[in-house]
Amino acid sequence: MQINSIILAAGLGKRMKSKLYKMLHPVCGKPMVGHVLDLLEKIETKRKVAIVGNGADEIKAYLGDRAEYAFQAEQLGTGHAVLQAKPLLENEQGVTIVICGDTPLVREETLREMIRLHQESGAAATILTAEMENPHGYGRITRDEQGLVTGIIEQKDCNESQQLIKEINAGTYLFDNHKLFKALDRVTNHNAQNEYYLTDVIGIMKADGDRVIGYCTPDPSEAAGINDRIGLAEAEKLMRDRILRKHMINGVTIQDPAQTYIEPDVEIGQDTVLLPGTVLKGKTVIGEDCIIGPYSEIIDSTIEHGGTVKQSVLQEATVGEHSHVGPFAYLRPGARLGRDVKVGDFVEIKNSTLGDNTKVSHLSYVGDAKVGKDVNIGCGAITVNYDGYKKHLTEVEDGAFIGSNVNLIAPVKIGKGAYVVAGSTITHPVEEGDLAIARERQTNKPGYAQLLRNRIKARNSKKD
Amino acid sequence: MQINSIILAAGLGKRMKSKLYKMLHPVCGKPMVGHVLDLLEKIETKRKVAIVGNGADEIKAYLGDRAEYAFQAEQLGTGHAVLQAKPLLENEQGVTIVICGDTPLVREETLREMIRLHQESGAAATILTAEMENPHGYGRITRDEQGLVTGIIEQKDCNESQQLIKEINAGTYLFDNHKLFKALDRVTNHNAQNEYYLTDVIGIMKADGDRVIGYCTPDPSEAAGINDRIGLAEAEKLMRDRILRKHMINGVTIQDPAQTYIEPDVEIGQDTVLLPGTVLKGKTVIGEDCIIGPYSEIIDSTIEHGGTVKQSVLQEATVGEHSHVGPFAYLRPGARLGRDVKVGDFVEIKNSTLGDNTKVSHLSYVGDAKVGKDVNIGCGAITVNYDGYKKHLTEVEDGAFIGSNVNLIAPVKIGKGAYVVAGSTITHPVEEGDLAIARERQTNKPGYAQLLRNRIKARNSKKD
Amino acid sequence: MQINSIILAAGLGKRMKSKLYKMLHPVCGKPMVGHVLDLLEKIETKRKVAIVGNGADEIKAYLGDRAEYAFQAEQLGTGHAVLQAKPLLENEQGVTIVICGDTPLVREETLREMIRLHQESGAAATILTAEMENPHGYGRITRDEQGLVTGIIEQKDCNESQQLIKEINAGTYLFDNHKLFKALDRVTNHNAQNEYYLTDVIGIMKADGDRVIGYCTPDPSEAAGINDRIGLAEAEKLMRDRILRKHMINGVTIQDPAQTYIEPDVEIGQDTVLLPGTVLKGKTVIGEDCIIGPYSEIIDSTIEHGGTVKQSVLQEATVGEHSHVGPFAYLRPGARLGRDVKVGDFVEIKNSTLGDNTKVSHLSYVGDAKVGKDVNIGCGAITVNYDGYKKHLTEVEDGAFIGSNVNLIAPVKIGKGAYVVAGSTITHPVEEGDLAIARERQTNKPGYAQLLRNRIKARNSKKD
Repeated sequence: MQINSIILAAGLGKRMKSKLYKMLHPVCGKPMVGHVLDLLEKIETKRKVAIVGNGADEIKAYLGDRAEYAFQAEQLGTGHAVLQAKPLLENEQGVTIVICGDTPLVREETLREMIRLHQESGAAATILTAEMENPHGYGRITRDEQGLVTGIIEQKDCNESQQLIKEINAGTYLFDNHKLFKALDRVTNHNAQNEYYLTDVIGIMKADGDRVIGYCTPDPSEAAGINDRIGLAEAEKLMRDRILRKHMINGVTIQDPAQTYIEPDVEIGQDTVLLPGTVLKGKTVIGEDCIIGPYSEIIDSTIEHGGTVKQSVLQEATVGEHSHVGPFAYLRPGARLGRDVKVGDFVEIKNSTLGDNTKVSHLSYVGDAKVGKDVNIGCGAITVNYDGYKKHLTEVEDGAFIGSNVNLIAPVKIGKGAYVVAGSTITHPVEEGDLAIARERQTNKPGYAQLLRNRIKARNSKKD
Repeated sequence: MQINSIILAAGLGKRMKSKLYKMLHPVCGKPMVGHVLDLLEKIETKRKVAIVGNGADEIKAYLGDRAEYAFQAEQLGTGHAVLQAKPLLENEQGVTIVICGDTPLVREETLREMIRLHQESGAAATILTAEMENPHGYGRITRDEQGLVTGIIEQKDCNESQQLIKEINAGTYLFDNHKLFKALDRVTNHNAQNEYYLTDVIGIMKADGDRVIGYCTPDPSEAAGINDRIGLAEAEKLMRDRILRKHMINGVTIQDPAQTYIEPDVEIGQDTVLLPGTVLKGKTVIGEDCIIGPYSEIIDSTIEHGGTVKQSVLQEATVGEHSHVGPFAYLRPGARLGRDVKVGDFVEIKNSTLGDNTKVSHLSYVGDAKVGKDVNIGCGAITVNYDGYKKHLTEVEDGAFIGSNVNLIAPVKIGKGAYVVAGSTITHPVEEGDLAIARERQTNKPGYAQLLRNRIKARNSKKD
Repeated sequence: MQINSIILAAGLGKRMKSKLYKMLHPVCGKPMVGHVLDLLEKIETKRKVAIVGNGADEIKAYLGDRAEYAFQAEQLGTGHAVLQAKPLLENEQGVTIVICGDTPLVREETLREMIRLHQESGAAATILTAEMENPHGYGRITRDEQGLVTGIIEQKDCNESQQLIKEINAGTYLFDNHKLFKALDRVTNHNAQNEYYLTDVIGIMKADGDRVIGYCTPDPSEAAGINDRIGLAEAEKLMRDRILRKHMINGVTIQDPAQTYIEPDVEIGQDTVLLPGTVLKGKTVIGEDCIIGPYSEIIDSTIEHGGTVKQSVLQEATVGEHSHVGPFAYLRPGARLGRDVKVGDFVEIKNSTLGDNTKVSHLSYVGDAKVGKDVNIGCGAITVNYDGYKKHLTEVEDGAFIGSNVNLIAPVKIGKGAYVVAGSTITHPVEEGDLAIARERQTNKPGYAQLLRNRIKARNSKKD
């Protein structure tokens, strides 16, 4: 059966109080309307028509050709919004999903179940419903004795007994496409708000003798539409919890799910442990048996099996098997660590390759460098990659030893097994096996410490 | 109408198990009794009398002249406590609020509503009440058929049907001032605890034919008195949630409100995003479109529009528009960053001005410095501001380039556009346009790396 | 009365999806079966028999001689599992606790209360029960009019009225030892699963005319068995909350208990404040009046009274009274700070002693050093402790001043009050009171900054 869809994305979102158009606010790192499109793509929807109005350009810029667009110039109600898709969809076969762009929590299995029930029952419309402990504010679902939906009663129209109904309209619908547009043509705006309500379609279909059914989701969060930043934070938490549960079921230990943040596309291997304050974003891939956190943010990076990352920030970096990062390390784009590498505290690595077993233990910066295997980069050593205009390459070959507080002025190459003594500023290449030194000899001045102190004190008091 | 107030602040707070007097324990960064005073000041209370006993000196030292004080030498009950204010207040007109110093969650709108109802109804007393799912332990409110309060029944005196009453005494009262002190004179301590109960005033007023009303707050957290550290943590969370909701409603995105900490006086612009682990304290002001966090603590600082702060700590610092801080930066008091400045990882800035477009990208310390525009401070460069006695000024003028691992020994000045090569220790001024160098030339010793290694090994083995 | 115990630890734990055997997954830092053994040791159990099967070797390796072992080759049910202990325990007197190795939340007071009730009532069996809001899935407890337990009905065998029973079997039992094994011999596997159920013992004892009683715990978390990583995270949270409450009741302020992680053996003094993101592990001891956090991880370390630790990581370190660490410091094993010491930002201390009043304020590494009192280690100063083969000792005596970016090449000794000027690499000892210098003098080349820039630009463009 062909599936079409209409995404209602023309609302203003005034309560977001934002320069950013509501549908583009991210939930777990992705604009909410992007989640809806993902969902429709997963169930292989043939046509996807986004109804746009407010922020139409921004929506189009974000979604691109993932959707077709119908423009709703004036916001005259949900029925009117759906009607804008008529020129595009009226001749299509099959069913049409109507879904709001601000309900990112609707699930694939739910849509599939709705489609199955819709087909099985020969319904003209299938409404997604949910049971709410506190249904106040939602449209209530009324059903007849066979369980068929007889109507949706808005809060303000509920009588006392209807107010007690806990089954509510979740705002996602499946319609027979032809019957939808036929019914929509008959919807009027003769009501208090002067709006064309999509839900009026239900009464029209019933009057035509069509069946309308409801599928009550076991997960009421699917009904959550986002209207303000509080709702945004709530949706974020619900989606985050889903992602976390998936990883836990797959064998990932998450010490405190309430303090772990994983975006939807992240992959994590079995028996990896995520400690509190772990933030995994983008296309990050974590292998098996890794320990990540606490308080580490990893963006678009790969950590191979057995890697550990503590109190660090990684972006577009690769950490090889059994390599160790942190605490307080910063791997920037292009950092590529081999196996059994140690990048310790207060170390930044940028656009550099470090070979297996290499150590950069503390207080170093390695940028734009090719570093071989078994290299020791001493504390405070720095690749001076920037001349004020351009970044240059530093090469350090296998087994070299770079002493503490050494400056390697790029472009420069340190040969295999070479030794650069602490405190040297290296401006010229060092060949394989050579020792390089570039520092002044030490002079001790007996008893001068006190003299210097006296001089300093005198100078300081003169200035006072 | 004149409003007076009595703050009950003489309790011992034994269950806090603390050297700090209970009323001075902070909630969201401010002592709990401070929140109560803030509230009374907001509704323009004319006189504020704090009843002090335990810890009187500390309370006075904290509140200063924001309140008058009455000393309660012995803790003989709430009625006795209020009575200590009689010499100060008995001749005042209007109403008197009686509020506990350990209920920091009472809200301004609640007191205003109590005052309105009190006046409108001509009541002698208005009691703040709340409905509790589990009312055990609280005094229950009994009402007559007109809804007037008939009494407050303590837990231990409740019969079975009274135990089911869910409306409880929240412990905040509004009294006709004259009637309060007249009634108090008649309260006795003829009860099991030999205490003078403030709540006995209700029965006396009723007996006198006065009206007593109750205002049931929609927010039961207002009834929360803090008795131990568990209650303190709960109050902290309730107040934090209120603050967070206010910012979310105003258009701030808070990715995880459960992990965001904002003190009451902080201001945040629209469309700013707060990531998990953001801690904003004191008089911090954040502009619009900023991104703060994750895991950043900002105290008494200003971040202008479009600024970003990642995994950093700021105290009494200013970050100009579109400037970027972190990850792992530390801005200390007096750090003042212009526009489009970058302060990167493992950088400390203290008492220093950085001009627009200046970059201090990594592993640097800039202290007591005036740094101009478009300056590049290389990796590992340090202002040597301390001679063991005093801090001295470093000046770096516009467009200068300070190489990596350079020491600038203050006081020193680097002129406009000057260039200091990497690894130099600068003890003398560098004029505009000059190049400064203070490092030894490099010597390579062919084949000596292995000799050095052998020597090291020999030395090491000798010592073993 | 003699107490024996049987720990059921042979389950497969398939839903953990783990290479690590389920019972060894840690909860609050300790394998779950370790918590159960701790509990049995606290109540002075004479014999402790662990029934092992899957992962027997790993369990034995972890528990060692804290338990005896009985091997269950095939998993034929809980009754069969307990029966494996018969050869070891059948001749023992007294009672036998049967407890699952995956219920780490059972409490000492609960076992003690079960033992008391068991003795007082002369029961043959005492079952730990709990009331569950949602009892679905658990075995329900049926009782007669005197409150004696008549049976345990598994979920699948519950009729409609039994499904409403909220009292459930928590899975921990106390048995008369002789009666247990006598009854077990009569348990059959004539049931749908072909398993020998321990709970069948109840019916057999009842048929023999023995009393079976139930003790309903006020803390339903004691019934929580861990079957997957979601359950693991939940148990972790429940145990964490217990630990946190204990410390709060003892007078520790925990600003946000939801974001504070304390392992069971940690000790904390009164009036210490823990800020969000504090992680305290192992045998850590924190004194009174300390401020820890935010975002600090402290492992097996001691912080003495009045110490503060901000945004730092400590492992096997000692921080003396009123000393200050952080933000962004890393104290590694063997770091020992005296009183009033300051270890500031981007500083690593490893295997080193720092005397009272010594300051290492920023960007330094002190490793394998003995540093005296009143020493100032300048910004960027480094102990060069590693020669590529071995770590060497650096000694800095009282009152010495080590300038910024100084390298101290170990082994080396800086005498009392000596002064090492900034930028020096020190390879030889400096005697008491001496001044040491090892840096090149500064040369300024007038107007050369532009020449250098031109040369750089020319070189860069040549390479393009």
